[in-house]
Amino acid sequence: MDLNALSEFARRDWETETDHDPVRFAMIGLGWWTREEAIPATEESDRCETTVVVSGDRDKAEDVAEASANADVALTYDEFHDGEATDEYDAVYVATPNAKHLEFAESAAEFGKAVLCEKPMEATPERARQMVERCEGEVPLMVAYRMHTEPVVRRARELVADGAIGDPVLVHGSMSQDLLEIFSNPDQWRLDPDLSGPGASVMDLGIYPLNTARFVLGADPVEVSAFARSEGEAFSDVPDEAATFEVRFDDGTLAACSASQHAVRSSHLRVVGTEGEVSIEPAFFDRQDRQFALEVDGTRANVDYEQVDQMLEEFDYFAHQVRTGGDFHADGRHGLVDIEALHAIYESAESGSAVTVLAED
Amino acid sequence: MDLNALSEFARRDWETETDHDPVRFAMIGLGWWTREEAIPATEESDRCETTVVVSGDRDKAEDVAEASANADVALTYDEFHDGEATDEYDAVYVATPNAKHLEFAESAAEFGKAVLCEKPMEATPERARQMVERCEGEVPLMVAYRMHTEPVVRRARELVADGAIGDPVLVHGSMSQDLLEIFSNPDQWRLDPDLSGPGASVMDLGIYPLNTARFVLGADPVEVSAFARSEGEAFSDVPDEAATFEVRFDDGTLAACSASQHAVRSSHLRVVGTEGEVSIEPAFFDRQDRQFALEVDGTRANVDYEQVDQMLEEFDYFAHQVRTGGDFHADGRHGLVDIEALHAIYESAESGSAVTVLAED
Repeated sequence: MDLNALSEFARRDWETETDHDPVRFAMIGLGWWTREEAIPATEESDRCETTVVVSGDRDKAEDVAEASANADVALTYDEFHDGEATDEYDAVYVATPNAKHLEFAESAAEFGKAVLCEKPMEATPERARQMVERCEGEVPLMVAYRMHTEPVVRRARELVADGAIGDPVLVHGSMSQDLLEIFSNPDQWRLDPDLSGPGASVMDLGIYPLNTARFVLGADPVEVSAFARSEGEAFSDVPDEAATFEVRFDDGTLAACSASQHAVRSSHLRVVGTEGEVSIEPAFFDRQDRQFALEVDGTRANVDYEQVDQMLEEFDYFAHQVRTGGDFHADGRHGLVDIEALHAIYESAESGSAVTVLAED
Repeated sequence: MDLNALSEFARRDWETETDHDPVRFAMIGLGWWTREEAIPATEESDRCETTVVVSGDRDKAEDVAEASANADVALTYDEFHDGEATDEYDAVYVATPNAKHLEFAESAAEFGKAVLCEKPMEATPERARQMVERCEGEVPLMVAYRMHTEPVVRRARELVADGAIGDPVLVHGSMSQDLLEIFSNPDQWRLDPDLSGPGASVMDLGIYPLNTARFVLGADPVEVSAFARSEGEAFSDVPDEAATFEVRFDDGTLAACSASQHAVRSSHLRVVGTEGEVSIEPAFFDRQDRQFALEVDGTRANVDYEQVDQMLEEFDYFAHQVRTGGDFHADGRHGLVDIEALHAIYESAESGSAVTVLAED
């Protein structure tokens, strides 16, 4: 077993330039994730800064601006769309409910600003496709999959690509949490199909095993099948209080995945190949002590490593690509495939039949 | 977290009587498993002994009898069916290819002998049902799920029943091995649908996560969905060189499972509930150092325990129930549900639609 790939575990293999002008961000949607994870990451970073904050609520925007290190401008959503303060930022981070991503990306494209859009990129394939088409050739568009710049995921991807586990055969992945324990108010957008898209657990959590498997395998989904159920009162508007789904990838690998917004916090990813396996557990939540294991021929290497600030890694990568003119992973077309797969999963759960994931064109 | 349930981890909670006359076995089908696992377990046991060995090959039967401690009688299959030496054994252990189980169970029932039948109990639901109907009311019939008497599985089942993880929500389970590395000859019965049933990986390996989930949850499958693929030449007669499958249980729990006869040896089982989770890894292969973990409210107990001889546990349990007149778990009707679920899984993989598992009546 060649463990060289595991040395310098947390290395930023994407980094070619260490010094550039900071990318100034307008942060759009000021929920707890933006306030407690995204803005602090930009404040920690030498490559980014938050100069503008944007909310539907003017008071909230002003409070967040005041509490921040560098944000001198607080805008309402309308003021943002009207093009106020466009000299004050270079890029936007869109962290509103899913079904509002498109409108902000469209305005950002109009103003010539790079777009870092939270996952899932939109509520429907149609709207995700509009976003891609609006940005393409105009402004950079990256979907904010923080697992793509998480070192343990990049190392797993490298090992799989290098053949360390032989040919991948099977994937297991799961993500669950207790949404109503985190947000005591059940009247929230993740449970509202108008804002979240077709469901709550697969859209918000199931996308992690789905997309991370894609990234680690370097393969795309071609067919899905799913079971879902909702029994709790709070989940009456969505089909998937809990769900399982299978994914057939274009390299032949099959994945068995699950997600629930009403279970204990848990996550894992494993890829079983013809010669070995890699596993990450816990896998998908922020600020956890992830562990990585590689097992080949009965020899198992368990790797503990110094955890990174995932949002800092993600923002730094995005800023680096903006300033160096590099490609973006995940770009909008990559994100669109997930939205198509997610909708196919919901369609399968409803129809009881496997559903082909439309080829992205 | 109440860890009392974990004390005396390997206790035989089923044991009410420690001293009884040994149950004398006729071992039918003398493949490596019978020779290297089953017969040695009966030689180790105070509750069992192997007195008769039965093979399609007279020379093999005689060799095995000679090498054994107590087997004085070697029979061919025909001699067994003709009722030779019925005074020399009290029970049969059937470990032939799946599609031959029925005929031996039928003869055993005719001779009034208790039946311990390897899993899966037969190749088709029709034949499994015939076995149940032939034995019921006549002779004890138990399906040899060694996980049912494996302490870690019994402790997991108790914890789940006691509500230690809240309500179960999601299950993940997998089992894979490299069949052609274990048996270098690809011309073997597990790859022959006439002998194995509809496939190779789900029938032989997928039954472990399926059945162990049933046992740990105390729930039965009501609907399944599956993906399968075969690409390798050796797997050209079966659909499932690798497969994933989903199971909806009658308590609402959803399971995401996988199996492959052409991947690295790997297995795991985890049950995620509303309050915690239990996991067993490695889970399903004999003679492994299984580990058990219980995690509740962020507190994790990792349990290493002194491993048992699974076949000794299983044979001792069976003999104990024979001698004490107890019920048998798993009985034939329990095993029949698995055969129905396995066939539904293959039907789903072929049709692309979810399939209802017929209620056992």
